[in-house]
Amino acid sequence: MKVAVVMGSKSDYPKLEEGIKFLRGLGVNVKVRALSAHRTPKELMHFLEEIEKEGYDVVIAAAGKAAHLPGVIASHMLIPVIGVPIKSSTMDGLDSLLSIVQMPKGIPVATVAIDGDLNAAILSVQIMALKYPDLKIKLDEHRKEMAKKVLADDESISSL
Amino acid sequence: MKVAVVMGSKSDYPKLEEGIKFLRGLGVNVKVRALSAHRTPKELMHFLEEIEKEGYDVVIAAAGKAAHLPGVIASHMLIPVIGVPIKSSTMDGLDSLLSIVQMPKGIPVATVAIDGDLNAAILSVQIMALKYPDLKIKLDEHRKEMAKKVLADDESISSL
Amino acid sequence: MKVAVVMGSKSDYPKLEEGIKFLRGLGVNVKVRALSAHRTPKELMHFLEEIEKEGYDVVIAAAGKAAHLPGVIASHMLIPVIGVPIKSSTMDGLDSLLSIVQMPKGIPVATVAIDGDLNAAILSVQIMALKYPDLKIKLDEHRKEMAKKVLADDESISSL
Amino acid sequence: MKVAVVMGSKSDYPKLEEGIKFLRGLGVNVKVRALSAHRTPKELMHFLEEIEKEGYDVVIAAAGKAAHLPGVIASHMLIPVIGVPIKSSTMDGLDSLLSIVQMPKGIPVATVAIDGDLNAAILSVQIMALKYPDLKIKLDEHRKEMAKKVLADDESISSL
Amino acid sequence: MKVAVVMGSKSDYPKLEEGIKFLRGLGVNVKVRALSAHRTPKELMHFLEEIEKEGYDVVIAAAGKAAHLPGVIASHMLIPVIGVPIKSSTMDGLDSLLSIVQMPKGIPVATVAIDGDLNAAILSVQIMALKYPDLKIKLDEHRKEMAKKVLADDESISSL
Amino acid sequence: MKVAVVMGSKSDYPKLEEGIKFLRGLGVNVKVRALSAHRTPKELMHFLEEIEKEGYDVVIAAAGKAAHLPGVIASHMLIPVIGVPIKSSTMDGLDSLLSIVQMPKGIPVATVAIDGDLNAAILSVQIMALKYPDLKIKLDEHRKEMAKKVLADDESISSL
Amino acid sequence: MKVAVVMGSKSDYPKLEEGIKFLRGLGVNVKVRALSAHRTPKELMHFLEEIEKEGYDVVIAAAGKAAHLPGVIASHMLIPVIGVPIKSSTMDGLDSLLSIVQMPKGIPVATVAIDGDLNAAILSVQIMALKYPDLKIKLDEHRKEMAKKVLADDESISSL
Amino acid sequence: MKVAVVMGSKSDYPKLEEGIKFLRGLGVNVKVRALSAHRTPKELMHFLEEIEKEGYDVVIAAAGKAAHLPGVIASHMLIPVIGVPIKSSTMDGLDSLLSIVQMPKGIPVATVAIDGDLNAAILSVQIMALKYPDLKIKLDEHRKEMAKKVLADDESISSL
Repeated sequence: MKVAVVMGSKSDYPKLEEGIKFLRGLGVNVKVRALSAHRTPKELMHFLEEIEKEGYDVVIAAAGKAAHLPGVIASHMLIPVIGVPIKSSTMDGLDSLLSIVQMPKGIPVATVAIDGDLNAAILSVQIMALKYPDLKIKLDEHRKEMAKKVLADDESISSL
Repeated sequence: MKVAVVMGSKSDYPKLEEGIKFLRGLGVNVKVRALSAHRTPKELMHFLEEIEKEGYDVVIAAAGKAAHLPGVIASHMLIPVIGVPIKSSTMDGLDSLLSIVQMPKGIPVATVAIDGDLNAAILSVQIMALKYPDLKIKLDEHRKEMAKKVLADDESISSL
Repeated sequence: MKVAVVMGSKSDYPKLEEGIKFLRGLGVNVKVRALSAHRTPKELMHFLEEIEKEGYDVVIAAAGKAAHLPGVIASHMLIPVIGVPIKSSTMDGLDSLLSIVQMPKGIPVATVAIDGDLNAAILSVQIMALKYPDLKIKLDEHRKEMAKKVLADDESISSL
Repeated sequence: MKVAVVMGSKSDYPKLEEGIKFLRGLGVNVKVRALSAHRTPKELMHFLEEIEKEGYDVVIAAAGKAAHLPGVIASHMLIPVIGVPIKSSTMDGLDSLLSIVQMPKGIPVATVAIDGDLNAAILSVQIMALKYPDLKIKLDEHRKEMAKKVLADDESISSL
Repeated sequence: MKVAVVMGSKSDYPKLEEGIKFLRGLGVNVKVRALSAHRTPKELMHFLEEIEKEGYDVVIAAAGKAAHLPGVIASHMLIPVIGVPIKSSTMDGLDSLLSIVQMPKGIPVATVAIDGDLNAAILSVQIMALKYPDLKIKLDEHRKEMAKKVLADDESISSL
Repeated sequence: MKVAVVMGSKSDYPKLEEGIKFLRGLGVNVKVRALSAHRTPKELMHFLEEIEKEGYDVVIAAAGKAAHLPGVIASHMLIPVIGVPIKSSTMDGLDSLLSIVQMPKGIPVATVAIDGDLNAAILSVQIMALKYPDLKIKLDEHRKEMAKKVLADDESISSL
Repeated sequence: MKVAVVMGSKSDYPKLEEGIKFLRGLGVNVKVRALSAHRTPKELMHFLEEIEKEGYDVVIAAAGKAAHLPGVIASHMLIPVIGVPIKSSTMDGLDSLLSIVQMPKGIPVATVAIDGDLNAAILSVQIMALKYPDLKIKLDEHRKEMAKKVLADDESISSL
Repeated sequence: MKVAVVMGSKSDYPKLEEGIKFLRGLGVNVKVRALSAHRTPKELMHFLEEIEKEGYDVVIAAAGKAAHLPGVIASHMLIPVIGVPIKSSTMDGLDSLLSIVQMPKGIPVATVAIDGDLNAAILSVQIMALKYPDLKIKLDEHRKEMAKKVLADDESISSL
């Protein structure tokens, strides 16, 4: 179980940490890289060839503003690419979202919510569960834990 | 290889036809349904239990306006759910897109472009290729055909 | 006079407190719950069956981002459902608003302003006043108090 | 059972016809008026006093652009006011929606989708059902008919 | 020279202070009021009749969210009404702007920028200058002072 | 009574005709010009000097896209400038509206609705009525005619 | 004088024709290609190496939706890249505009208006005029012709 | 190598400093001015004549809100004008962006990202490199340094 997490800038890292921890907590091998589609296009290509050879299952790509990274990766790979739009200092994340989700015919990017790194991680596990059925049990457990947390919150709220 | 394609309204069908044909052309079993999260919630639940039992690999869910269908399905399934925002008569598809992509923590929907049914189909194949590696060859062929078409267009354009 | 106030996440509670206090101040029975349409769909269904049996008059449902909670509740109930879009960390509440107000034909949600919990509470009282005419007097008093406050403000302003 | 349907301009009538027919089909008394908050403020006030005296249950108010009609009516009445944002020639209905839904504290307007006249009508019936419980049966029948129509569509789709 | 400055809520006052000072600095009589089109419609009407009798020249009306105040005033007066959209806690002022500027045919509101109170004041002086030509000289002086300030800034910048 | 109507492009003329006819119908002298702030800046300046000398009362300026014309005129004149945002082929008029209404401190443009030429004309008459009080009677008559038309519409509607 | 015009899809060609004709009319060598950043990334790279060797002066790149083409080209070239956002079937061109203009630090794209191909062509000539000063004369002539056309329009308008 | 950097207000200076330093670091002559298209139109014209005579290569113009400065400069010059939209207190920079980028046919402004001053500076160097080929080497070095920085970040990230 191998997931590559690529971000367009090191400064995006804090927004991706929760998802990376989630994946590692499930025993997934996670390779984390900060590579820019625009500033380091060649190194990005080398990295993509590398993970292709090493048989990675899914790529999670996060970027902000004119966020081309997920689309550029998707155009070079056949494995699923999940895009995480990062909210930047202007436009409240709308630019990142549209730059990632509005991909033209032929090259999809599986887009999650703005700053939605945890959902990207969960989605990657849902995808890998097709190949590694044991993951389905872990997803089920995680969902139950989430429900428990909501219900505990509910109990504390309903007594107010 | 089994994909369920669910739309919120029969009127969305023409916007989903290309993707359905693509999947069937690759030999994927496609079950097509028109079920509304709001108008037929019980029948939707029955259908979801049914495809769970029958071991479907991916769900593609398309809806417009306050498009809850993909999220509601995702909250009841552990397999990947791909959301297709449908452009309706107002708001140019922005309402559909935000209602699908901005899912809260824990329940991801893999969102593609507004009216992006073909990309949803391709993404479902990329996901299934983890389990059925032969699909990767077909994806590769499809991508090469697309490239050929672009290059043929390019030739006709570059002589203008 | 019974109103159920449901929020998608416990963290929304502070944004709903003013409305809950207003209702309780008028002698309305208020049941407050934190249940997620996506993370606890079954518990939500149980709760909806419960309030149906207990003869609740109105549901107020608040949620953010891809805010499906009000619509999901509305699709399972025949009593009026009031939706409160909660502003989240991105998109300034526009995603919440469109996800709630743009409901498809057949299943309305009575939507109020972003973070408009007090207006949701007032609206629920206006609705219940059809059945409990005494509430109309209380609404009239509240409106007069509001006017008094504005006029006191006006007096302090007009002397500047 | 009395509902007043007020539109800001006669040209909005075709967008309101379906809702009016729905109400009349259920035996609701519907008074239909075209009065402008801006161009005929006095006649509007007279009309509001009239329906107050005649004991109307709900007002449905539809308007486009800087759509003040629902809010102005709500500020003069204690009964529930439902607002229908009408899409006009520019801004795709966003101006109408925000002008209606973003009401300040104290004076709610129960807002439905852009051009959502049928949902306004259904919502008015849900509200009146608190006072006239027989309406609940009719609402239930209508919802079942809608479900039947969706399921008939579903059958025709699922055989494609 | 008489200008009425009306705001929808006392809390808007700090955003209007600069414009009020500008007007008073030019010797204009300024009546400042906090009256809500929705919460105090009758008092607003009384005030409008009052300023009509007293021969006010211009009204400046400021409001946020579903900002009906300027339009409601304009529908009851024949003198020019200037609208100032106030940025509120959500939607970055877009709701206020559209609610004020998108007035239907027949009842114009002269709209200035979001939070643009000073420009509203200047515009009111430009309008009054048709009747009181001396104001033109003051406007000219003000513009020259502004230019001087820009040029002083320019000098300090150009030496960096 | 002199109003200059300037448009950024001859193609905007049909969108301005109704307002021009309204003004001429009231006996206002209207000079109509098609001058571009960007393509004919010098001729625009000559025209502005000309109307300054000839004592024009108000300028109405209409433009689309990055609509600088009203602001550029306002920066060269002390008389009131009314801006009409013209909807162009993209962005639904939002670009024109923001380019006109969001003027910086010091140089106001009195902005009306997108494609709101008639309101621009009425506003110019309201402004001129400060100087030519007879215009107030005409404005009053116009408003009464509008009300009559609405009431005739109302009568035809209320019998449906 | 060499300009490369690249579009993401052959279907964009009609929107680029006017700019291409303008350039050829000035004697500029124009190479026109339809290459997709996503569907033909390798061919695009070959083309970019080719035009680098052949000493092209400027690249004009046009694309719609998640429009990565201009940015991808800019990340591989040191010559100026002009981006033309193409309006597609949804989102009115806003997605294309933001995907092109919001480039991250370090890799600029000189963006023109949505569907603004002629301005892209003129800008490329303004840029080349630094190297080929004769172009300045042609730009000056073009601008004078534009002004003439506006003034002819103005004459026909001002007599209405 | 001469670049003029003009801003609409002195308060924009901190947002332009990085770009100015970049240019001066490459040995470019930079003239920095704070001149308003609206408040100091005549001084702006004088400055434009001055830099025309002195043979400036490029103008960088930054402005916020209804940001006319870049377009007004472009309409008076034949050299390339680069526009930098400045984010102001409302509308998150969208008003500035649309006011600058949506220029009408004939007068292009090369627009960069909101608050994108460094990219404006880099673009100006790319343009000047057509005339001063040595700049290409410096651009290449700068790009390599950027890549190095990204790769150093990448190394620190990939070990996490």
